[in-house]
Amino acid sequence: MGPEQILLLLLDLLGTFAFALNGALTAVRHVRIDIIGVLTLGMITALGGGILRDIMLNDLPPATFQDWRYLAVAAFGAFIVFIFAKHLGRITVPIEVLDAVGLSVFAVTGASKAMEYGLGPVQSIILGTLTGVGGGTIRDALIGRIPSVMSEGLYAVPAIVGAGLTVAAMMADLYGVAAAVIAASACWLIRIIGIRYKLDAPTPRGTHSLED
Amino acid sequence: MGPEQILLLLLDLLGTFAFALNGALTAVRHVRIDIIGVLTLGMITALGGGILRDIMLNDLPPATFQDWRYLAVAAFGAFIVFIFAKHLGRITVPIEVLDAVGLSVFAVTGASKAMEYGLGPVQSIILGTLTGVGGGTIRDALIGRIPSVMSEGLYAVPAIVGAGLTVAAMMADLYGVAAAVIAASACWLIRIIGIRYKLDAPTPRGTHSLED
Amino acid sequence: MGPEQILLLLLDLLGTFAFALNGALTAVRHVRIDIIGVLTLGMITALGGGILRDIMLNDLPPATFQDWRYLAVAAFGAFIVFIFAKHLGRITVPIEVLDAVGLSVFAVTGASKAMEYGLGPVQSIILGTLTGVGGGTIRDALIGRIPSVMSEGLYAVPAIVGAGLTVAAMMADLYGVAAAVIAASACWLIRIIGIRYKLDAPTPRGTHSLED
Repeated sequence: MGPEQILLLLLDLLGTFAFALNGALTAVRHVRIDIIGVLTLGMITALGGGILRDIMLNDLPPATFQDWRYLAVAAFGAFIVFIFAKHLGRITVPIEVLDAVGLSVFAVTGASKAMEYGLGPVQSIILGTLTGVGGGTIRDALIGRIPSVMSEGLYAVPAIVGAGLTVAAMMADLYGVAAAVIAASACWLIRIIGIRYKLDAPTPRGTHSLED
Repeated sequence: MGPEQILLLLLDLLGTFAFALNGALTAVRHVRIDIIGVLTLGMITALGGGILRDIMLNDLPPATFQDWRYLAVAAFGAFIVFIFAKHLGRITVPIEVLDAVGLSVFAVTGASKAMEYGLGPVQSIILGTLTGVGGGTIRDALIGRIPSVMSEGLYAVPAIVGAGLTVAAMMADLYGVAAAVIAASACWLIRIIGIRYKLDAPTPRGTHSLED
Repeated sequence: MGPEQILLLLLDLLGTFAFALNGALTAVRHVRIDIIGVLTLGMITALGGGILRDIMLNDLPPATFQDWRYLAVAAFGAFIVFIFAKHLGRITVPIEVLDAVGLSVFAVTGASKAMEYGLGPVQSIILGTLTGVGGGTIRDALIGRIPSVMSEGLYAVPAIVGAGLTVAAMMADLYGVAAAVIAASACWLIRIIGIRYKLDAPTPRGTHSLED
């Protein structure tokens, strides 16, 4: 296992963990709080993006079903939320920050895995973006909420930036730990700034955003 | 074709039939009752879980598209519902009982097929559960309802038990007709008891179920 | 690349373009109108049906990710809508006509690709129908609308007819440009007539449509 594979695995597990926390917290707040509900939504959110990516790349069964660490990390993240659910009202765990971490990390791993599997640069950026937004989109569809990627101005843009930086680094033969961390951080930062200042992507001239 | 393959096929067709009746009845009651609506929702409910399973196991095209018996059984089940739709108000067909049959049978076939394809025991239990809940989840997403697996306390638990018993029997080299029937029956019974007594999975201490 | 492959590609790109316009217009009218929202919904609607088809046929990565023309056509269609969004109130672009074009073309390409991959005639008709309705169904699920295939009387029927004519032509060894155009046109015409006269598929005797 080369250093790039190890990096990909570590980032993948970080994203899995962040989305597991996020999905489990979403279950606690919006749906139901028995242990199965929390584990189910946590694991689906954590594993959905990677499974979509692996289906598209024909790397089946998906990594989730071949490597026990994905399942363990996802279940562990969701279980932590279940255990501490009664304290969550006080702690105000930053649910959107965790979503941003999963989004960033999966955008990078999705794009780099796509490049490794021989997809073109534009295709790899799109597949990276799909990997990043996939888990949260399935989560939202399951709880009957319009997915963030449809309802929020700046949800896909940071993923596109993160995946784009990853692809650029790989094409310039500069990809490694530093490049992956920079790409994921750029994505995360743009997403957090977007949330903080409620930024929107450009709208056509002569019209107004629906939120106006 | 060995006896285990025949068993797997028969159980798969039983689950397909039960979910076809269930999906078609759901269409009649909640969406629309023209023949296409009934056939569509019946067939999607019947075939969705197995298709998800076969995508994950890279057994593509899915069994549904390779073996005409799946399509025939699914269409036949939905068609029966269409024919007798006008009597359904009187008969009060047990829509949840049929859902429980499909859930039970697909949990067993999903888990045993996953083991045969070389997945680990935990992965096989999860894939069996996904196979069991998949068809109903797609059905609910299509008619705009929060899926049972999200909104009901004891929907995934029986599937996990059924898949778990299947995996245990295979690891102990005891899998066969008897074990499969016992595993599916255990799943079905837990599900029915859960519906009857409105049981819930454990919630964290210090909190209350959202339904309280 | 033989003439049939070229035909399949051209029809696929036409369907992609029509669904891209349709999905982008849906975004402008129902969800949000920043450029990312328009591009996202346009591209998902345009590419969803073909991706589902390619997963089922195990032709992975899907054509979308292997051939840049799909992405280019989908993005171009969505971009046109974004550019002219401010004029759309006046032009009243026929959103349902575009949906019917995508439905028709994908039903034909889905069915013919399925036959080429060795699926049986009934399976090919169903896969063609799935290809036709897939993009719009994902679009509707993402914006929280009951999919047309569930809520409208004559949505799946024209796709079944188009896919059926395609399969019949291939079995009679008559498939070519003329047959494909006839099959797609028949599907399109039935769909448009269905919209115009609000036709419904047959309902069981003794009951009434829910819309009565």
